[in-house]
Amino acid sequence: MTDVKGFFYPRTASGRSSLIPSPPWYYSGDLLTVEYRTDPARVAELLPAPLELAPEDPGAVAFIWADWQSCSSSREELLDPVRSQYKEAFVVVRCSFGGQTYSRCVFIWVDKDFAIGRGMHQGYPKKLGSMWQTRPHPFAQGAPQIAAGGTFGATLAAGDRRLAEAVLTLREESETNGFVNSHKMAHHRVFPGIAAGAPDAYAELIESGSSEFEAGPAWSGDADLRLFESPTEELDRLRVDEIIGGYYRQVGVVWNGGRSLATLSGDTRSGATVSERG
Amino acid sequence: MTDVKGFFYPRTASGRSSLIPSPPWYYSGDLLTVEYRTDPARVAELLPAPLELAPEDPGAVAFIWADWQSCSSSREELLDPVRSQYKEAFVVVRCSFGGQTYSRCVFIWVDKDFAIGRGMHQGYPKKLGSMWQTRPHPFAQGAPQIAAGGTFGATLAAGDRRLAEAVLTLREESETNGFVNSHKMAHHRVFPGIAAGAPDAYAELIESGSSEFEAGPAWSGDADLRLFESPTEELDRLRVDEIIGGYYRQVGVVWNGGRSLATLSGDTRSGATVSERG
Amino acid sequence: MTDVKGFFYPRTASGRSSLIPSPPWYYSGDLLTVEYRTDPARVAELLPAPLELAPEDPGAVAFIWADWQSCSSSREELLDPVRSQYKEAFVVVRCSFGGQTYSRCVFIWVDKDFAIGRGMHQGYPKKLGSMWQTRPHPFAQGAPQIAAGGTFGATLAAGDRRLAEAVLTLREESETNGFVNSHKMAHHRVFPGIAAGAPDAYAELIESGSSEFEAGPAWSGDADLRLFESPTEELDRLRVDEIIGGYYRQVGVVWNGGRSLATLSGDTRSGATVSERG
Amino acid sequence: MTDVKGFFYPRTASGRSSLIPSPPWYYSGDLLTVEYRTDPARVAELLPAPLELAPEDPGAVAFIWADWQSCSSSREELLDPVRSQYKEAFVVVRCSFGGQTYSRCVFIWVDKDFAIGRGMHQGYPKKLGSMWQTRPHPFAQGAPQIAAGGTFGATLAAGDRRLAEAVLTLREESETNGFVNSHKMAHHRVFPGIAAGAPDAYAELIESGSSEFEAGPAWSGDADLRLFESPTEELDRLRVDEIIGGYYRQVGVVWNGGRSLATLSGDTRSGATVSERG
Repeated sequence: MTDVKGFFYPRTASGRSSLIPSPPWYYSGDLLTVEYRTDPARVAELLPAPLELAPEDPGAVAFIWADWQSCSSSREELLDPVRSQYKEAFVVVRCSFGGQTYSRCVFIWVDKDFAIGRGMHQGYPKKLGSMWQTRPHPFAQGAPQIAAGGTFGATLAAGDRRLAEAVLTLREESETNGFVNSHKMAHHRVFPGIAAGAPDAYAELIESGSSEFEAGPAWSGDADLRLFESPTEELDRLRVDEIIGGYYRQVGVVWNGGRSLATLSGDTRSGATVSERG
Repeated sequence: MTDVKGFFYPRTASGRSSLIPSPPWYYSGDLLTVEYRTDPARVAELLPAPLELAPEDPGAVAFIWADWQSCSSSREELLDPVRSQYKEAFVVVRCSFGGQTYSRCVFIWVDKDFAIGRGMHQGYPKKLGSMWQTRPHPFAQGAPQIAAGGTFGATLAAGDRRLAEAVLTLREESETNGFVNSHKMAHHRVFPGIAAGAPDAYAELIESGSSEFEAGPAWSGDADLRLFESPTEELDRLRVDEIIGGYYRQVGVVWNGGRSLATLSGDTRSGATVSERG
Repeated sequence: MTDVKGFFYPRTASGRSSLIPSPPWYYSGDLLTVEYRTDPARVAELLPAPLELAPEDPGAVAFIWADWQSCSSSREELLDPVRSQYKEAFVVVRCSFGGQTYSRCVFIWVDKDFAIGRGMHQGYPKKLGSMWQTRPHPFAQGAPQIAAGGTFGATLAAGDRRLAEAVLTLREESETNGFVNSHKMAHHRVFPGIAAGAPDAYAELIESGSSEFEAGPAWSGDADLRLFESPTEELDRLRVDEIIGGYYRQVGVVWNGGRSLATLSGDTRSGATVSERG
Repeated sequence: MTDVKGFFYPRTASGRSSLIPSPPWYYSGDLLTVEYRTDPARVAELLPAPLELAPEDPGAVAFIWADWQSCSSSREELLDPVRSQYKEAFVVVRCSFGGQTYSRCVFIWVDKDFAIGRGMHQGYPKKLGSMWQTRPHPFAQGAPQIAAGGTFGATLAAGDRRLAEAVLTLREESETNGFVNSHKMAHHRVFPGIAAGAPDAYAELIESGSSEFEAGPAWSGDADLRLFESPTEELDRLRVDEIIGGYYRQVGVVWNGGRSLATLSGDTRSGATVSERG
């Protein structure tokens, strides 16, 4: 019997094997966002109790591509960049809990296991996918610039099927980078019961956001977004009824934990109730 | 507010997006196993309280490669095999809890996200890796057969580094496929607390095994195993002191849940105690 | 100045770095074939001079998935199977040259660089793709068997788009594994001229086939094949007008070179003529 | 019989399927270079006749990582960036031909098939690999800047083995980005004879360089480079005897063809002779 170390599994005597290091986690990256409206009933389908639809503009959705480089406090991952670079595409809606409006990631794909591990901790429902987004570069031979007229593409595939495509042409600097992903996140962390057919063994509602945030100017522009069918995904249920806007922004972020909003009892799938406030 | 469905995240109105379907899960595959002895102190380092070293042969380790095809009860994944085939390499030791001997997977790498999702549920500490094992085939031009003299190689890499290599030459049919991975598994399922520096929010010790098991003859043979250094792994701490044996077997397995052994309180990393028996 | 060695690039003093070893090359694998008829005019579009449509059934097409393990004479690749296993999907039509009927691969995707290198030598127009085909296994939990009723799926994706899907249900043993891919292959090997806008610098028509071939019983069955659009592919121009049959067979093959049919002059893209018989 | 179109294979009626579009090709990217000296005899081993060692500093080697975004004249690949982004790592030496000094790429790994196709045309001996290099970003949370003190890592793996690692810490702006890769490239384009054991069917020595080149300031700094063994590679024969320097530079490049220097006769592997000047 030993005291093991490590923020996450596998825990060992040294803690060195942990899939993810202890927070804080540091990120530099580029965000390409398309915001649009869908039928609020489709958003409601993704909000288990005790969450409710946001009071204003409840059908607003943000589809976000992010191209990240990230590291722990040691910064050692930056010198072995297979351990620091990853891409993701994710869908954010808003919801209400305890009288407050939260952002909530309902679908997300990443391309590294450490990103999946962080997602388990933070309550992001991460799957593996293949994401690509056009990169800006100072030289225009094979790249746009972050400037009026700069055109960026972004794609998402998983299971060898293309799931989404966006094109964004920048028009002008913008006061915001969108509003759907601007609240703290409200996410579930759940373990299904291990026995066959059992209800959830553990369910917690947690809140988190960045502990530090820096950003360049946000740019807005003309955006197009297409969602495709897949037998294992439901992205296309969040039908694009009306484009709100497209945005591009370079950011630096630190994440250092969150706060437990509530421990839930009963099964999350059929009306969990708050058994303990966080 | 909705009743959501889905065995695992993301939960939706239909449940179709879940990273993994509800058990039972069905598997057909080939196992290449190398069993060896290491210093029992190194095994103990991987056993957090309330687990203890197995009473007999406590330094025994099984390094296993598996080439799987798997599906849910619908069997639909078999016709879209990007969703059913995956490979894995994993390390099993034995431990003792409540007077009983268990197997325990201490390190494991897989190459699909649905396999990671199953691992989260079952308590396997899965990372992504690149695993390869020689396949038997009826025609010998580019393949060995499962027969005396058949030689199989297996490799594991992660983070763009090779972590392990094995070579196995079959000699004869064997009564067993090894003994280290032959018990029920005792695994932790843990959520670190969401607040910075917090102890574990949830920790459970669960037991599981196959609900159905079929197998062809086990073959034993001469085995070689080499483990390599990596800054993010500790495989090579489980130094190969003495090869016990090498095995090859084709199997069919069903997994349909397990049993909670205990809910733990305190932090798993510093001597959790059993707060409730499963 | 040195005598360099190596069958292919990069050539070095030892020859050890060559992307591919010297033939003969040895293969063991499983073939899933769907044969169908399309408009012969679409086949003709893929046959540059001096090739002509095959005299009989000129619109016949074979779409083939193959799951291979392969090696050189040293067989060392079999023990490091990242170097021996690969998957491919390819499309074969027939054509006529010098009064003889040939098979010709018009589109092909593979998932390893050594397979691309072999293709450069053999005249297969290989791209990278992601191919999956259901594997048979002795245990039925997660696998079909090669037997009546066994159902196999196969998929092809490239560029993060799904390009083709097939489902095959075996019905009975068959005298043949199809007829479209049963001739020697007639392939071009071409270097475009290095100067901007120059005609081909080199073009050769070569013939090759297996030097050794073993196979289990062929099985035929009911097949379905769907082809999808892509901005970079033209698979779907070979529209499935009528399914001829579906086949499954396990084979062992040796390839050991071919024969030059002709060196071509002029540009292959606008009516090359035979300048020298092979 | 048809006139087919397409710069490269597979050629079709429309030309749309070609693995690569017609030049010119456009590139924007970041180069991380480590220059060093090795034993000139090891360089000579990689120079088949009629090439000779460069007259000055013949043991100089440049190891270069490049993170590219690229496109054709249509620029359509930029909006589907799975078709435009790729990474590479390559090794350049210098050589002499016809009294002129050339650069020559002796080993190169890339991660996309279109990059392999371009390499076939340009004479780069491309294999698939996994390359990573630290990216600069305006926000420092998870990234260095291109400025004094900025530290960048770079790694190369192939065949599930790590082959090379570099670390570069920028010190100051530099007049040059190194000198080894600054000449036109002299590359072979070779087809081995298709018959078993035959000499090369075609061998050509070509010259090429960029038709347009823009660049930001070059930065030099302290560099470290480590090369590792592999059974299929010979990188480590080019032992690092003395580091010359490390460099970082952002560039924009256009490539639009080259010039044939010579058609060779005899076998490239045993002293080819120039049969025709380009």
